[in-house]
Amino acid sequence: MSRRSGRDPSHHVVVVGIGFGGLEVTHRLGRADANGGLRITAIDRSNHHLFQPLLYQAATASLAPSEIAWPIRSLLRDYGNVTTLLGDVVGVDRERNAVLLADGDAIPFDTLILATGAGHAYFGHDEWEAYAPGLKTLDDATGIRGKILTAFEKAERTADEAEREALLTFAVIGGGPTGVEVAGMIAELAHETLRPDFRDFDTRKARVILIEAGPRILSGFREDLSTYARTALVNRSVEVMLGEPVSNCTADGVQVGDRFIPARTIVWAAGVSASPAAQWLDAPADRAGRVQVQPDLTVPDRPNIFVIGDTATLAMPDGTPVPGIAPAAKQEGRYVAEVIEARLRGQPAPGPFRYKDSGSLATIGKRAAVVDFRRFSFTGWFAWWLWGIVHIYFLIGLRHRLKVILSWLWIYFTGQRSARLITKADATRGGKPG
Amino acid sequence: MSRRSGRDPSHHVVVVGIGFGGLEVTHRLGRADANGGLRITAIDRSNHHLFQPLLYQAATASLAPSEIAWPIRSLLRDYGNVTTLLGDVVGVDRERNAVLLADGDAIPFDTLILATGAGHAYFGHDEWEAYAPGLKTLDDATGIRGKILTAFEKAERTADEAEREALLTFAVIGGGPTGVEVAGMIAELAHETLRPDFRDFDTRKARVILIEAGPRILSGFREDLSTYARTALVNRSVEVMLGEPVSNCTADGVQVGDRFIPARTIVWAAGVSASPAAQWLDAPADRAGRVQVQPDLTVPDRPNIFVIGDTATLAMPDGTPVPGIAPAAKQEGRYVAEVIEARLRGQPAPGPFRYKDSGSLATIGKRAAVVDFRRFSFTGWFAWWLWGIVHIYFLIGLRHRLKVILSWLWIYFTGQRSARLITKADATRGGKPG
Repeated sequence: MSRRSGRDPSHHVVVVGIGFGGLEVTHRLGRADANGGLRITAIDRSNHHLFQPLLYQAATASLAPSEIAWPIRSLLRDYGNVTTLLGDVVGVDRERNAVLLADGDAIPFDTLILATGAGHAYFGHDEWEAYAPGLKTLDDATGIRGKILTAFEKAERTADEAEREALLTFAVIGGGPTGVEVAGMIAELAHETLRPDFRDFDTRKARVILIEAGPRILSGFREDLSTYARTALVNRSVEVMLGEPVSNCTADGVQVGDRFIPARTIVWAAGVSASPAAQWLDAPADRAGRVQVQPDLTVPDRPNIFVIGDTATLAMPDGTPVPGIAPAAKQEGRYVAEVIEARLRGQPAPGPFRYKDSGSLATIGKRAAVVDFRRFSFTGWFAWWLWGIVHIYFLIGLRHRLKVILSWLWIYFTGQRSARLITKADATRGGKPG
Repeated sequence: MSRRSGRDPSHHVVVVGIGFGGLEVTHRLGRADANGGLRITAIDRSNHHLFQPLLYQAATASLAPSEIAWPIRSLLRDYGNVTTLLGDVVGVDRERNAVLLADGDAIPFDTLILATGAGHAYFGHDEWEAYAPGLKTLDDATGIRGKILTAFEKAERTADEAEREALLTFAVIGGGPTGVEVAGMIAELAHETLRPDFRDFDTRKARVILIEAGPRILSGFREDLSTYARTALVNRSVEVMLGEPVSNCTADGVQVGDRFIPARTIVWAAGVSASPAAQWLDAPADRAGRVQVQPDLTVPDRPNIFVIGDTATLAMPDGTPVPGIAPAAKQEGRYVAEVIEARLRGQPAPGPFRYKDSGSLATIGKRAAVVDFRRFSFTGWFAWWLWGIVHIYFLIGLRHRLKVILSWLWIYFTGQRSARLITKADATRGGKPG
């Protein structure tokens, strides 16, 4: 609450992007600044921090958007030295050390942390995005939710069998955790939640197809866990297609090898491309656009500019890159805060960033999940409960936890999902197609 | 779950619009049809039933959209003789006895019930809608929520004092319950919820102005209750302007008499106009477009077409019209179900519809509400708690009740609102204006 107008803090840190990495570094620096030598500006183009690991649940009507999002301003309210700005960063002026906003403003910094995340990559086929939306924002999620629910509504209205089949075919492209989770959830929606609600057709006839170009799904997990996940999906009537990439997406469906699959709903979970941060900085980047950072997460020759999370890439000692997941982004945020604090105190910098792998989890559907703690791993109902507990634990605040627990228990015991709303204006006027 | 394809029910009732009236009549007819002589089709252009009395709380970030909405299909799932359709009705073919959908379909009926509600009336100034949106749908609510929250975000970004004042001026037009509730809530948001979250200005400087053309707010309530409500609003720093109509709304603000009030956020709660049902039927209507129905709620000379809720108008024995509120719509729905059942059984029709006034409630803000039970009335904290309990009671289902209770208790004890999200794409890219 205290106005800072009277102060003239010596060091201004600008954090762009308040995802897991950006939030962590801002929290750490906000807390560290007991003596007031630091001023922090947190910029994001949306007003909320999003718990992306559960975004697929918002896209499949299991959770409400507000159950997985928090106003950034409210998360940072307790730090008197942090200013939150809603703004769209479009560039970095490296001469003047300032970030450039879409509305023409320039915000000068002493230290810059870019944590702008990633978008969808369509491998040179950006025209596919119109037919195969990806899942990164709350608007993406409510849009996909509307598309899925509208497909069932339209299926109830059509008399054309081929059209109905296309409406009831859901193609999910990409066999990583998001693709697996979305496919499993759509199957649950079709085969359980919606089953008693429709009259003219059996929602269990819906086909959910998971398409993965590589030889197995969940390729970041151990091979036996991939096999388990595939079996669990097949048991839930999800068709899993492996080894062939998608070669086209249209309004009518998706082309995989020489097969064309008529499908009115396509979800893209196949590729990410980093935000344009590398272009802003004219920094070396990998094929997906991630900035190749130094071992201390700075940009080469720019010790006052850090890049973290999905926007950066860094090889671990074994040569593999630090994975693009929430725990990695958080660890990077924490590390950058330590580097900045050490610099301000005139202390030697900590050693290079080391990623501590805490394992990975993915859920397939009710009572089916995989947990890979590297030293040991497990699957099935215990993994599923553990997955739920871990995700509740990482939610921020008691209210969000209580609400998500309530939503999940409700789904568990009744099969009914709380957020089955078609709210996007373009989806509501859904007359019968064709 | 049973497919009805083998049956050929004798009487087909079509209900258009599943608000309070449409839902009630469908429930009653669905339950009544133990013997299977009746087939019901429920059509709505959105997939959810909305608890409109709490819509203003979604517009002011207190409740999430999914906490006040239910999938219609799911509400009606237990009636084997009810088919739910998502469809946009655009007309009635009175020769063929069929409703016409936007996509060209025609749905024949034996009996038709039009419960299509009302929209906003701008008294011949439809161009005002762009600047002064009304509050009827979930999309309206999330749009207004985004506008209010974006105004504060922009205020934090601007250096122009006049611009900031305009951003922090919220004009609510119309002093009925919705206008009073919206104004009270924006004041609470500005003066309590958002206060600790902003750095560069004091959110308590925000001006909330309630503009009512008539001599008092809450004109449907007793005069002493109006006076109480006005005092309670003024105590909450809401400016109440009485006795002068708005003569213009622009992107810059609102003109009231000879005063122009610069305001970036304007909410329209002044007038409703009925859905175009009267035009579909070529039936007599009042100035707001409401169909003037017979004492049995049918359209003159069309005994098989009923119009109920906000779409209809009917004078009570004392000459005043049945009010356009949820309890009246529900009573009408119940009555129409009785008439239809009596007809199908060959029994004499029940007497004319009689509205039973169960009183009215409106809330102004924390611990301030008015309750008018006609025989007695009260105000203050007890009215406020009663208001809350009554609204929880009328929500459908335990889950919604638990979630709303949780949201409200949280706001009560922490002042923090759960749904402070800017999600509309047009609002997110909110750079600094001007």
